[in-house]
Amino acid sequence: MEKNEKRIITISREFGSGGRTIGRRVAEELGIPFYDKEIVDQIALESGFAPRFIEENGEHAPGLSRLSYAFAPQGVPGVMNGLSTADFLWNIQCGVILQLAEKGPCVIVGRNADYILKDRDDVMDVFIHADPEFKAERIVRLYGESEKSPNQRLTEKDKRRRVNYQHYTGRTWGAAQNYEMCLCSSTLGVEQCVKIIVEAVKISQGK
Amino acid sequence: MEKNEKRIITISREFGSGGRTIGRRVAEELGIPFYDKEIVDQIALESGFAPRFIEENGEHAPGLSRLSYAFAPQGVPGVMNGLSTADFLWNIQCGVILQLAEKGPCVIVGRNADYILKDRDDVMDVFIHADPEFKAERIVRLYGESEKSPNQRLTEKDKRRRVNYQHYTGRTWGAAQNYEMCLCSSTLGVEQCVKIIVEAVKISQGK
Repeated sequence: MEKNEKRIITISREFGSGGRTIGRRVAEELGIPFYDKEIVDQIALESGFAPRFIEENGEHAPGLSRLSYAFAPQGVPGVMNGLSTADFLWNIQCGVILQLAEKGPCVIVGRNADYILKDRDDVMDVFIHADPEFKAERIVRLYGESEKSPNQRLTEKDKRRRVNYQHYTGRTWGAAQNYEMCLCSSTLGVEQCVKIIVEAVKISQGK
Repeated sequence: MEKNEKRIITISREFGSGGRTIGRRVAEELGIPFYDKEIVDQIALESGFAPRFIEENGEHAPGLSRLSYAFAPQGVPGVMNGLSTADFLWNIQCGVILQLAEKGPCVIVGRNADYILKDRDDVMDVFIHADPEFKAERIVRLYGESEKSPNQRLTEKDKRRRVNYQHYTGRTWGAAQNYEMCLCSSTLGVEQCVKIIVEAVKISQGK
């Protein structure tokens, strides 16, 4: 394998930016697995937590630590080796993502996979962001209305992702230097983002 | 003109990343003017400062203000309306860049043009960054050795650009959200960056 030949694509994204859709479409175009729900299920299996708990809280630590051990598997703190819930889940998440990457080419969305896989040189890290209006319209259309305003939901979710990323990686979420490519999906369009990423991966592979 | 049709491309870049070369090549591919030296000359003409002084210090304010009025045109502080040298040059720079954008499609490198043109919706803002090794090799090859180590030169120059950007725009330099596209030239390659930008501009124009 050539140095710089990219086989694994990580997608980090602002809430509502369409990053998940872009990741799934990139995987389709390249004919490689798309890991999203699989990561949640595997962390659930290895941790004993419910998939839904992982899904809702996995990218939101370290605030999770406030929950203390209340939700620990079978209420037995001992199984977490004295770690906070957040740190316990983080360790499992790292293991799951490293194992998935070992299995071969894939697209991984979220969960700080860019940082977890930083020692591999076959990874292309992508960050997707968008204008607030685009994201607000999108989350209401996809996830429905809620008591909170769309802008409040966007701000809260991204703040939690940013804090989580900073806490576990020491890096700034959304700083261009952490990624091979950052794309604004509201200006470029979701399909154009897919095309740009697929092209860049193919060129890195000499195709 | 369609909303989101991009006719002006601004390129912000880390020192040594090849952003200037990428900008020139994008302008060639699109057959539109490339503004770099022209901006310096115009600021020089309107300010009375020497082009070389503008070139060396224009992106490095507000540290410039320490120079006080020592280098003011003809040594007459009065012509700067009581502004510091840095603020005086910033005002002229804004005017020059706004006028250039009015003239039609173009590529503009550096000088916070992304911020200065933020109220136009026909502008595509691009940020180019690269791995330190790539940049170090490149600056020694292009600009020669110096007493300082390549890494020191990179750090100092980018720090000045970052401080200048923060000071005049209130934004964080290199934060993905400020740009339509951020690309890592050391991973993607200079020519691939050119291709990605040109394609994105053409698609925004419906071509």
